[in-house]
Amino acid sequence: MVPQYAPSLRSRLPVVALLLETIFILFFAFYMEVPYIFPIVFYAEFQDVHVMVFMGFGFLSTFLVRNGFSSAGFSLLVAAMAVQWAIVFQTLLQLPYPGRITMESLVFAEMSAFSSLISMGVVIGKTNPVQLLLMSLMEVTGFILNKWLIQTLLKKPCFNLYFTWLVHWTIDTDGIEPRHEKEKSDRKMTLFSLFGKDFLWIFWPSFNSLIVHLLNNDMDLAVPLNVICSTYLAMAVSAVTAIAISVLFNPRGKINMLHVQNCILAGGVAVGGSMSTFPQPWVAMAVGLSAGIMSTLGHQYIKLLMEVVFKCHDTCSILSVHGIPAILGWFVQLFLQFANSDSTTFAVRFAVYHIVILLITLASSLTMGVITGIILKWRFWRPPQDRKCFDDQACWKFPHLAKHK
Amino acid sequence: MVPQYAPSLRSRLPVVALLLETIFILFFAFYMEVPYIFPIVFYAEFQDVHVMVFMGFGFLSTFLVRNGFSSAGFSLLVAAMAVQWAIVFQTLLQLPYPGRITMESLVFAEMSAFSSLISMGVVIGKTNPVQLLLMSLMEVTGFILNKWLIQTLLKKPCFNLYFTWLVHWTIDTDGIEPRHEKEKSDRKMTLFSLFGKDFLWIFWPSFNSLIVHLLNNDMDLAVPLNVICSTYLAMAVSAVTAIAISVLFNPRGKINMLHVQNCILAGGVAVGGSMSTFPQPWVAMAVGLSAGIMSTLGHQYIKLLMEVVFKCHDTCSILSVHGIPAILGWFVQLFLQFANSDSTTFAVRFAVYHIVILLITLASSLTMGVITGIILKWRFWRPPQDRKCFDDQACWKFPHLAKHK
Amino acid sequence: MVPQYAPSLRSRLPVVALLLETIFILFFAFYMEVPYIFPIVFYAEFQDVHVMVFMGFGFLSTFLVRNGFSSAGFSLLVAAMAVQWAIVFQTLLQLPYPGRITMESLVFAEMSAFSSLISMGVVIGKTNPVQLLLMSLMEVTGFILNKWLIQTLLKKPCFNLYFTWLVHWTIDTDGIEPRHEKEKSDRKMTLFSLFGKDFLWIFWPSFNSLIVHLLNNDMDLAVPLNVICSTYLAMAVSAVTAIAISVLFNPRGKINMLHVQNCILAGGVAVGGSMSTFPQPWVAMAVGLSAGIMSTLGHQYIKLLMEVVFKCHDTCSILSVHGIPAILGWFVQLFLQFANSDSTTFAVRFAVYHIVILLITLASSLTMGVITGIILKWRFWRPPQDRKCFDDQACWKFPHLAKHK
Repeated sequence: MVPQYAPSLRSRLPVVALLLETIFILFFAFYMEVPYIFPIVFYAEFQDVHVMVFMGFGFLSTFLVRNGFSSAGFSLLVAAMAVQWAIVFQTLLQLPYPGRITMESLVFAEMSAFSSLISMGVVIGKTNPVQLLLMSLMEVTGFILNKWLIQTLLKKPCFNLYFTWLVHWTIDTDGIEPRHEKEKSDRKMTLFSLFGKDFLWIFWPSFNSLIVHLLNNDMDLAVPLNVICSTYLAMAVSAVTAIAISVLFNPRGKINMLHVQNCILAGGVAVGGSMSTFPQPWVAMAVGLSAGIMSTLGHQYIKLLMEVVFKCHDTCSILSVHGIPAILGWFVQLFLQFANSDSTTFAVRFAVYHIVILLITLASSLTMGVITGIILKWRFWRPPQDRKCFDDQACWKFPHLAKHK
Repeated sequence: MVPQYAPSLRSRLPVVALLLETIFILFFAFYMEVPYIFPIVFYAEFQDVHVMVFMGFGFLSTFLVRNGFSSAGFSLLVAAMAVQWAIVFQTLLQLPYPGRITMESLVFAEMSAFSSLISMGVVIGKTNPVQLLLMSLMEVTGFILNKWLIQTLLKKPCFNLYFTWLVHWTIDTDGIEPRHEKEKSDRKMTLFSLFGKDFLWIFWPSFNSLIVHLLNNDMDLAVPLNVICSTYLAMAVSAVTAIAISVLFNPRGKINMLHVQNCILAGGVAVGGSMSTFPQPWVAMAVGLSAGIMSTLGHQYIKLLMEVVFKCHDTCSILSVHGIPAILGWFVQLFLQFANSDSTTFAVRFAVYHIVILLITLASSLTMGVITGIILKWRFWRPPQDRKCFDDQACWKFPHLAKHK
Repeated sequence: MVPQYAPSLRSRLPVVALLLETIFILFFAFYMEVPYIFPIVFYAEFQDVHVMVFMGFGFLSTFLVRNGFSSAGFSLLVAAMAVQWAIVFQTLLQLPYPGRITMESLVFAEMSAFSSLISMGVVIGKTNPVQLLLMSLMEVTGFILNKWLIQTLLKKPCFNLYFTWLVHWTIDTDGIEPRHEKEKSDRKMTLFSLFGKDFLWIFWPSFNSLIVHLLNNDMDLAVPLNVICSTYLAMAVSAVTAIAISVLFNPRGKINMLHVQNCILAGGVAVGGSMSTFPQPWVAMAVGLSAGIMSTLGHQYIKLLMEVVFKCHDTCSILSVHGIPAILGWFVQLFLQFANSDSTTFAVRFAVYHIVILLITLASSLTMGVITGIILKWRFWRPPQDRKCFDDQACWKFPHLAKHK
């Protein structure tokens, strides 16, 4: 059945993983400490995000019937590595000060893992775990560098760029056929994957409230209530909208489960991307409505276009889930700042800042993307042959499986 | 295989959904605001209930093999709409005061969605999403109207009526055959649905504690510890009891998974329905034991009776899960108030109030139920033909499914 | 297909379960009370552990295709009974003082259920629910007795013994063939079980922080931050390590899903077992690395050895998941105490205490294990015949199953 074996990773994966672990532990031994006296704040919210990362994203692409083990197993591997590297690299940028691990470090580490797993959604099934590991390390590096660059240059936090950062990955994974033979799902695994994705939907308000916490560097509890309500309502509106639009644009009036899976999150991404304290909840709802419409239409039409015209294949439809709503959020933030400004000078200054941040992010994304692409294409990493894509057989041992069902 | 297509909802669902969303957003724009300064209390409990609604109820009826997409997808649609309508309608009743969105609004919205999804469990598989949407809006309307009516007439909160309210739905879904050919489950989907239902079981203490919070309108933290312990113990007792009774009443001593799925929740419903601060935890445990016995026997015998005699079909066994324990809880509350009263006058007065509340609720339930039934039977909503019941094919596009496993 | 029926439990399970429930309720009626005024602390952490017990362990062994109902259903039954018995038995030991139910009681009850479910992982599939129930009651009894003995004798808390306690169960389940015909998994159920196990991985920091809370009997919030960070990092390291070691020791460089499922938890168990406040996070990471290596190698080689040489069959690989890391944690605690001691006298005294505690625990484990084993082997409990092992048919009614898929 399997005439040619997939390349063995025995001499690659353990070396990379254990070497990195050793380096991390040595770094922690010399540079990191946990402060003893510190009240634990927002632990419940942290746990919600922890569930989102390891449960929601961990099972994001399990709808692929033949790729379920890889989807779940590699997500765990990549996220567990990304959180450690995020803590290490952030401390590296702050040297010679010693690193202190607080709840904020852990939250920041989870956000970095979040960003890695979003990118992983584009290439899952077409890469081996070593490539995924390297990609996630590069991604976290770029993510933190970009943040540091902007904070140093402009003295301004820029968490929203987080999302736009991810768009670039859709570009450099060319060379893969638009539709792979083994890339298929079935009813049960689709429901299973929806189960995981529902955790993302449910806990997104916690996620956005933590972003605002990190952004403001203070613990003013009034802001998150606003953020929680805005995100909650935007999520509800975008779920209803995605289903409605899916029916509207299907010739026979049927719902596409892929739209339900992907586009219900659009409202939360857009509200998170705009990173503003919405003055009124209806603005968040309107953003959710627009995001739901744009994301569903994007999934319906742009995804196909990307595949056919640009030969760019996006396994988990990251562009329509995260790319389009994030760009919408960017414009919403710009617009809201204009609307709230009293003086024109301030508004123009903000707009310039905003655009400069976008340009820096785009430039660094492209640079990091190209570098990462070049590194990953190195044959040394033993990328899977095309016929081994979307196939657990390439990387997993199946010892106990039933011969017949 | 499918000779005649199910009626397309393309001209119904998007119109209803997007129209309602537009109205909601306009209403929010003119009447709602989020207060800026407000400490976020009981956010962790809120998230537990959020998980119960969207995860527990969202996957309640996924045990139906051919109806999984509809079960999960329509639950999301209905709940997302119900939370918005609950906030809007509650504000409408308080006009001319402007609406303020607080955590309490969100909790109340979740409770309303909870009630909608319970009702939906009776009719899922036999209705299309537009009908489910309308039913849930009517249900939330009736639920809030009933609460408002009683509070205005009797100056008394009445959250417990919440549960009895739902009984009526079993009545007006007649005309469907007792056992549908496509209504079948398999082992994996049953376990999957149990996975979701376990979330209900686990987080029920949070649910009951939030009900008490809303009922008392104060943040006295002592009450919820009592409620949490009572609910926790009642859940444990009713889980054991349901399994024991299931074995006892099976001729060959086997356990019925339907009893495990449904009747383990009975203890929590009964404790929630009684809405009393139990003076001693053993009372809650005894209530849990009784609820477990009554619910399992109800499932075993009454469900069949309802189907054969009344031609009333209850997909998710809502009567035995929520109906019977809620009535038990009502009697427990009455009894406890009698036992705690010092003077006979007060006890009698309470009993009269209690019975009047029940009658009002029954009357409004029946009225709303009949009205809703008439509206839903309108052919305009394109109800599914009988042979399309319990079949995802009627409403869902299956683009990526594997041809063979 | 089934020529001889499995023995009916109709005259056993309901009697045992309902009798115990009645006794528990009577005991609660006379001896237990819930204090009215008490602030609810660490409720969010409690809920995390509640999810771990009923979701994580509840679906631990659902990877067994033909044993899914038993895995999920009996876990619920056993855990629901264990929490009640833990509260009752702990109060019995403190008589004549009346029992007061606080959050700490509930947390302690969950820990006891946790310990029962770990043991259950060894024998699931080869025992009937009555046996499981009795085993869990004996286990909780021994667990609490052991804790009480050590606290009374040595005036010292000993929560870490918790874990070593469990090792003994691997010994007395002899007589079962190394590999059972019906003990098989498939891809979907394996993923499903991983989904449950991920909850254990995610919420382990909450679990360890609650252990430290209970151990110290004070609410000093500084300790848990340290514990949370240590556990979090150890979990991340052991996840990466387990996957790397799995690849390294497979001749064709493939990952074994059983290692991912089981050995990613090793870091948390070891950190929990050491029960020390790690002075530096790198120590926890190094412990996680060692635990990941030892657990994976143990799973690879020792499990087979146990099966072949000792005829001891361990369904859920409890030895490598909990046994080996717990012993590692024990040595880490000993070592850390030596390293931190200023005077040699104190260090030696601690070491003696430590070893005495281990010996008491081993002795009581062995005694309780042998007693339990003798009780369980009594034919009165109608143990399943060997050909009914790992088969839901023995205990479950399958009323609604699809005849064909």
